[in-house]
Amino acid sequence: MCQKLNTIGMFGLGVMGANLAQNMVNHGEKVAVYNYTPDLTEKFTAAFPNENAEAHYELESFIASLEKPRKIFLMVTAGPVVDSVIQSMLPLLEKGDIIMDGGNSNFRDSNRRYHELKDKGLNFLSVGVSGGEEGALNGPALMPSGDKAAYDQVAPILEKIAAQVDGKPCCTYLGNEGSGHYVKMVHNGIEYADMQLITEAYQFLREKLGLTVDEIADVFKSWNESELASYLIEITSEILTHVDEETKQPTIDVILDKSGSKGTGKWTSQNALDVGVPLSIITESVFARYLSGLKEERIQAESELSGPKPTEEAIDREAWINLVKEALFMGKITAYAQGFHQYKQASNEYGWDLKLDQIALIFRGGCIIRADILNPISEAFQTDPDLSNLLLSPYFKEKAGNYQQALRQVTMKGMENGMSLPCFSASLTYYDGYRSAQSGANMIQAQRDYFGAHTYERKDKDGIFHTEWY
Amino acid sequence: MCQKLNTIGMFGLGVMGANLAQNMVNHGEKVAVYNYTPDLTEKFTAAFPNENAEAHYELESFIASLEKPRKIFLMVTAGPVVDSVIQSMLPLLEKGDIIMDGGNSNFRDSNRRYHELKDKGLNFLSVGVSGGEEGALNGPALMPSGDKAAYDQVAPILEKIAAQVDGKPCCTYLGNEGSGHYVKMVHNGIEYADMQLITEAYQFLREKLGLTVDEIADVFKSWNESELASYLIEITSEILTHVDEETKQPTIDVILDKSGSKGTGKWTSQNALDVGVPLSIITESVFARYLSGLKEERIQAESELSGPKPTEEAIDREAWINLVKEALFMGKITAYAQGFHQYKQASNEYGWDLKLDQIALIFRGGCIIRADILNPISEAFQTDPDLSNLLLSPYFKEKAGNYQQALRQVTMKGMENGMSLPCFSASLTYYDGYRSAQSGANMIQAQRDYFGAHTYERKDKDGIFHTEWY
Repeated sequence: MCQKLNTIGMFGLGVMGANLAQNMVNHGEKVAVYNYTPDLTEKFTAAFPNENAEAHYELESFIASLEKPRKIFLMVTAGPVVDSVIQSMLPLLEKGDIIMDGGNSNFRDSNRRYHELKDKGLNFLSVGVSGGEEGALNGPALMPSGDKAAYDQVAPILEKIAAQVDGKPCCTYLGNEGSGHYVKMVHNGIEYADMQLITEAYQFLREKLGLTVDEIADVFKSWNESELASYLIEITSEILTHVDEETKQPTIDVILDKSGSKGTGKWTSQNALDVGVPLSIITESVFARYLSGLKEERIQAESELSGPKPTEEAIDREAWINLVKEALFMGKITAYAQGFHQYKQASNEYGWDLKLDQIALIFRGGCIIRADILNPISEAFQTDPDLSNLLLSPYFKEKAGNYQQALRQVTMKGMENGMSLPCFSASLTYYDGYRSAQSGANMIQAQRDYFGAHTYERKDKDGIFHTEWY
Repeated sequence: MCQKLNTIGMFGLGVMGANLAQNMVNHGEKVAVYNYTPDLTEKFTAAFPNENAEAHYELESFIASLEKPRKIFLMVTAGPVVDSVIQSMLPLLEKGDIIMDGGNSNFRDSNRRYHELKDKGLNFLSVGVSGGEEGALNGPALMPSGDKAAYDQVAPILEKIAAQVDGKPCCTYLGNEGSGHYVKMVHNGIEYADMQLITEAYQFLREKLGLTVDEIADVFKSWNESELASYLIEITSEILTHVDEETKQPTIDVILDKSGSKGTGKWTSQNALDVGVPLSIITESVFARYLSGLKEERIQAESELSGPKPTEEAIDREAWINLVKEALFMGKITAYAQGFHQYKQASNEYGWDLKLDQIALIFRGGCIIRADILNPISEAFQTDPDLSNLLLSPYFKEKAGNYQQALRQVTMKGMENGMSLPCFSASLTYYDGYRSAQSGANMIQAQRDYFGAHTYERKDKDGIFHTEWY
C-alpha cells in the first residue's frame, strides 16, 4: 500500500500560511500542513477540508509525508523563531531538501541561514511575500532568492500560486543569498512612502482645499483611472467611503492618528544609510509614523507653539486638485527613484546582480504597491540596465519636468499654511538637490578640513589637499 | 633605586593621542606613551621632549611603568583594533586597572567591552572626545561613562585636561556602560546638522541674495556676535576669508563639492530609527553628503532635469539676511530638539539615566558644536529634567514662535527658486508636524487595517479595533 506523498509542506498556519497553503491546493498541489500548536492546524482543517490538504500533528510525520527533495515553506514569525524551526527540522532532513522562508526576515539573517544550510547540503530560499491575507490566498507577489538550481525545483509551484499580470507570474528568481528578503524589505519601504504621500495629498485636499471626505473619495476614485492607478489609491478611495456604524461619521474620522510599524521600513532606511543612498522620502515616512506616536505631546504643542494663520485667498479648487494629483505622482516618481537607486547600490555592494526591470515587473500584481507606474519603471531599466537613476530615463525625465512645478506649488502652499508635508518636501528637495551640479558640500569639506584636517579634493586638479586655515 | 611611576599611559600616538598626552603632561601628569609601531613614538618624543613624557617601545615596560590601579587611555582606530589592543594588554593587567577608550567607538561595542572587562575585574570607560587636534591639545570636551567609582579615580586627570567654561570642566560622568560613546555619537550627528544648516544659509545668501564671498564672511562674523555665536559659525567666517594661493580665488570656490563622512552621523540616524525618534534634520544632513558624492550624475541631471526660473523681484537684502539668520537659528533649535529627544529616549530604553542638562553643559567648550545656545538648552533641562521636547520649554517656545516665520519664508523662497535646502525644509516640516494635534496617521492606520488587518485605536474609546472594509 503506497500512499501518494505530498508535493510541498506548509509550516505555520497563521492567516498568511493558511491562505498560502489553500492557494497551493487550489493550484493542484498536494500540501502537508503543520503548526507548532495543534489549534491552528485544527482550525485550518475545519475551515478548509480538502483531500489535498493533509494535516499533521507531528513534525516527523509532516516531513516524512513529503516527496524528495522535500519542499518546505515556512510562514512563521520572523526572527529567532525561524532559526529554532530550522534547528528542529535538521535531524529529519536530507541533502538537497529545500526550505523556503516566506516571512519578513531581515536579509542579513537570511544571508547567514543561506550559508549555514548550504554548508549542510541543504537549500535555503528567501521568499519575500507581499499582498496581505487576500494576496496570499488569491495570488501574492513573490520575491525568491537563493540557489538558482533549488529555485528551479520550486519555481513551478511558486510561479503558479503568484499573481499573474499580462500572462506573467509576479514571481521570478532574483539573486543569491537573502536578496529576496532584501527586495521585499525595500518594497515595504516604498510602501511606507506611497502611503505617506497619499496621506499628505489627502490632508491637503481636506485641510487646505476644504473638500469633504466624500468628495475626496471621488477624487481618489478618479485618480485610480489615471496614471496614478494603484492598489493603495484604490483602497484609499474605499476607506473614505466607509462609515462608522456607531457614530455614523466617516470611519477615517474615528480612527486615532497614531500609526504603528513593524520594522521593514526602518530597516530600509537603516540599510540606505549603510550603502550610502539618499533615501529621504522613505525615511521621512518612517519618521512621520514615529511623530504620530507622540499624540499627547502634539496636542500640547499645538496649543503652545505658534504658526502662520491660514491664508485666505480665492482658490481654484479644480486646478488645485489637479496640482495635488501631479504632486502625488511626482512624489511617487522620486520615491521609486530613491528605492531603485538603493537596489542598484545594494546589488553592487553585495554582489547580487539584481535585475531592476524584473523587480518592477513582479511588483505589478499581488503586492501592496502594485501600480501602473511599474510598467514604465520596468521599461526604463529594461531599455538601460545601467541606468543610474530613474529620473534620468526619458519617460520619467519628461514626467518630472511636467510635474515638478505642481509639487513645488503644493509643498509651498502647505508650508505657507503651516501644514506639515514631510514626504512632499523631501521629494522636492531631493529633486532639486539631484539636479544641482553644484552642491554645498564644498563648505562641508572646508569645515571638516578646518577642524579635523580631513582634507578635500579640488575642482581644478586631481589629488588630496589640506589648507592651513589659521 | 626607585623610579617614580607614571600616573597615566597613552596608547596610540596619532595626532589626537599625541596631543592628548601633551595636554596631560602640560597639566602636571607623568605620562607613559606607547604606540604599536615605533615611528610615531619617536616622532612624539622628538616633537615634545619632556621629562614627564616617557616613551616606551615595549608593551610590557609601558604597562609596568604605571601606578596602580593603572590608568590607560586608548586613542586608536575605532573598531576591531580596540579589541585586539585590549586583548594584547589583558595578560599584563590586574584587577582594578582602568582602560579608557577615547576613539569614536560604536556604543554597542563599548557596552560589550564594558561588560566583558567587568567580568574580568577590569574597568572600561568610554570617553567620547571632541575638539579635533586643537581641542585635544588645549582642552577637549570629554564624555566619559562606565563604572562611577572607576571614573572617580580618573576624574582629576580628565577634568583638568578638558576645556573649562565659566570655571566648569567640559567633562562630567554621564552614565554607565558605553553611554559616553553614545553621547559623542549624537554630538557628531548634531554637528552634521549644524554644518549642513550653515551650508544652506551660505547657499541662500550667495545664490539667492547674490552676496559675494567676502560679504558672506562679514555676515557670519556679525552672526558670531549674536545668539548664533558658535565655533562652527566662527570658522565658517574664517573659511570664507581664505584665498587660494594658486588661483587667487576664494578657497571655498576651488574645493570640490563632494563630502565624505566617517560613520557617526550615519550611526546616529540608524539609532534614532531603532529607538523611534523622528530625527529628520540630522538624517537629511547625512543624505546631503551622500547626494553630494554623486557629482557626475548631478552634472548630468542639471542639464537634463528642468526646474523653475529664478524669480526676479526687488529684494530687501538686509531684511532677507536677517530672515536667513533667524531661519538658521530656528534650524538649530529644531536640530537640538531632535537630538536631545534622542538622548532622552535612549536613556529610557537603555537604562542610563542621562542628565540632559549636564550633556549640554559639557558641550559648551572644547567640542565642535560649542555654542552659546547650549546655555539655554542646559537651563531648560535643569529647570525641568522631564521636559519632553526642547520646543516646549518657555525659552525655546518663544524663540521658535519668533523665528518660525523666517524659516518658512526662506525655505519657501528657496523652493520657489529651485534651490535644495533639505535641512531647512526638514526643520520646518518637523516643527509644523510636531505642533499638529491631528496628524495624517489615521489614514495610515486605515490603510494598514485594510490590507493587513493590523487593527487601529479609536479616538472616542479605548480598545483595539478592526474594520471589515470590503
